[in-house]
Amino acid sequence: MRKVPVELGKASYDIYIGDSIQKELAEFLECPSFSKNALLVTDTNVGPLYGEKARSLLEGADLCVHMASIPAGESSKSLEVADTLYTKAIEAGLDRKSPVIALGGGVVGDLAGFIAATYMRGVPFLQMPTSLLAQVDSSVGGKVAVNHRLGKNLIGAFYQPNGVFMDMTCLDTLPDRELYTGLGEIVKYGVIADAAFFSYLEEHAERILQKAPEEMVQLVARSCEIKADVVSQDEKEAGLRRILNFGHTIAHAIEKETGYKRYNHGEAVAIGMLGAADISCQLGLVQPETVERLRSLIIRLKLPTRAAGCRVEAMYQDIFHDKKTIGGKVHWVLMEGIGRVIVRSDVPEHIVRSAMEHCIEG
Amino acid sequence: MRKVPVELGKASYDIYIGDSIQKELAEFLECPSFSKNALLVTDTNVGPLYGEKARSLLEGADLCVHMASIPAGESSKSLEVADTLYTKAIEAGLDRKSPVIALGGGVVGDLAGFIAATYMRGVPFLQMPTSLLAQVDSSVGGKVAVNHRLGKNLIGAFYQPNGVFMDMTCLDTLPDRELYTGLGEIVKYGVIADAAFFSYLEEHAERILQKAPEEMVQLVARSCEIKADVVSQDEKEAGLRRILNFGHTIAHAIEKETGYKRYNHGEAVAIGMLGAADISCQLGLVQPETVERLRSLIIRLKLPTRAAGCRVEAMYQDIFHDKKTIGGKVHWVLMEGIGRVIVRSDVPEHIVRSAMEHCIEG
Repeated sequence: MRKVPVELGKASYDIYIGDSIQKELAEFLECPSFSKNALLVTDTNVGPLYGEKARSLLEGADLCVHMASIPAGESSKSLEVADTLYTKAIEAGLDRKSPVIALGGGVVGDLAGFIAATYMRGVPFLQMPTSLLAQVDSSVGGKVAVNHRLGKNLIGAFYQPNGVFMDMTCLDTLPDRELYTGLGEIVKYGVIADAAFFSYLEEHAERILQKAPEEMVQLVARSCEIKADVVSQDEKEAGLRRILNFGHTIAHAIEKETGYKRYNHGEAVAIGMLGAADISCQLGLVQPETVERLRSLIIRLKLPTRAAGCRVEAMYQDIFHDKKTIGGKVHWVLMEGIGRVIVRSDVPEHIVRSAMEHCIEG
Repeated sequence: MRKVPVELGKASYDIYIGDSIQKELAEFLECPSFSKNALLVTDTNVGPLYGEKARSLLEGADLCVHMASIPAGESSKSLEVADTLYTKAIEAGLDRKSPVIALGGGVVGDLAGFIAATYMRGVPFLQMPTSLLAQVDSSVGGKVAVNHRLGKNLIGAFYQPNGVFMDMTCLDTLPDRELYTGLGEIVKYGVIADAAFFSYLEEHAERILQKAPEEMVQLVARSCEIKADVVSQDEKEAGLRRILNFGHTIAHAIEKETGYKRYNHGEAVAIGMLGAADISCQLGLVQPETVERLRSLIIRLKLPTRAAGCRVEAMYQDIFHDKKTIGGKVHWVLMEGIGRVIVRSDVPEHIVRSAMEHCIEG
């Protein structure tokens, strides 16, 4: 069992990472500030695999569990599906202290978190992330959201969970491609903050691809620590937190241009990181060898290095409509080396376009 | 011009109350942390009266104003109407620093505040309340929400405005009944926290009913001060803030039983305050004369003292479904005198039922 604290003043919480989280969860739920009535949100993929196990864990901790299963997939992150969960919560008699518990990947976490943030103006929120991506990304940072038909995650909040419980045995059933997408974000943490962790990924790539338990716990714990460290310094994304966006500016454009279908998030981030590295190299911030070192790790971790089905012109326009673009300025997160990034908003257009050219399959 | 500070740490803000708020608004909007693109939300009642005035004030402060008018009335506080505002915001290119500005009464403030709290996970929020109720109630406290078909304000957040600007000349066009509903909440502030303010209301009742400017500014400023003082000690309604709920437990039941149609909020609160006073008297916390003093002021301010169309049995059930009821416990805010209240959760059922009997027209 590893425990990663996330320091956010009054909103601080702990992440528990291990084979069995039963004892920790039971102790946590003894807190008198929770009501016994709870809403367990899962989806049609994860529910059949882990729904009953989670239910009995929670019931063992003396909760009265109301389970809601949403259709698996991004399209469930909508106000319409949110409305069905509000209805379920009201009909089940959930009050202001009733925990909402997310059991699943990023979609379940984002949607259930949005419900927790807004039902009765905010109720306790617990996460039980079951995918590697959700474990290393959405379990830290308090970003919850649903999509609008005009864009992803446009409706949401910053809302911290009260606790995160990761049963790492859930990874046993994770499809390979879902493993790789998580690895995309994990590589990012090495690049932005920890050269030693990047080296660890290089050295343990084979074991990681086999989902060796010891390595997986280390990957998740270290990723959460890095993200927690950044977020605790900048909860609301006013400055430093931007570095978590490394690779994401181009990734979002790729996701948009391919209809959020061809690439999953970590795959788009892998390509986007190479795009950002390319810009960094063109600006003389890093040597070509550093870019190649990143490319090599991405390839070893079964992630793509170029995107099919994208055009530079459209991608270039997309970046100005990104949620993180403020006052028309794109804040590029660029590499100064492995483990070190800076934010620049003065990247010339031709350099961005050239990097985008290199990112796409011609 | 009166300025009331609301102390909430990093979320602190000021309320400006006066005949002309032009200068203060312009200075406020010079803040570099706002984008120029702004969404002005109003409704079909207030828009025709003050929409263009507000627009030119804001444009004078160099904002690019996109105006959205929602149908007047409670039914606009829905996820569906919220969705139309998200669409408008996205299409207008609003970014994370674009202010959302509420021009109107409580419905506009609650809905626009919910948009501000959730669009792109939170954008700046300005309030320009035009009704007395909105000025003394929703302008302090950060409660924003939309309704669910199964209950009012069930979907929302605590989200503080960056500033509140009240042009008191808006009250000129306020219908009498809307004046009285505001006075219902204002009487509450006297009862819960300030005997001298209660006396002021008694002494100035006639001038108040004529909307005399000096008295109106004093009423609004003192009410905001009292609410700000309570909220700054308990932003998220964990304890003390409950006292603001004086009169509201029974009021909510009356509103529910009459379909939110027969009585407006301040009217229901007036009756509910007498119900709470009745309970207090039955428990020996106050003398009958104190209850009569409250009843007398309520009558002078043209507010009702009994509700038609309600049954005790249904009302009694309703209070257990109130949003503020936690773990099945009703926290009654009771009087110990004018200006002094306590919270009790041990009120015997027969006393509650008897007070409800006295609240309804037989």
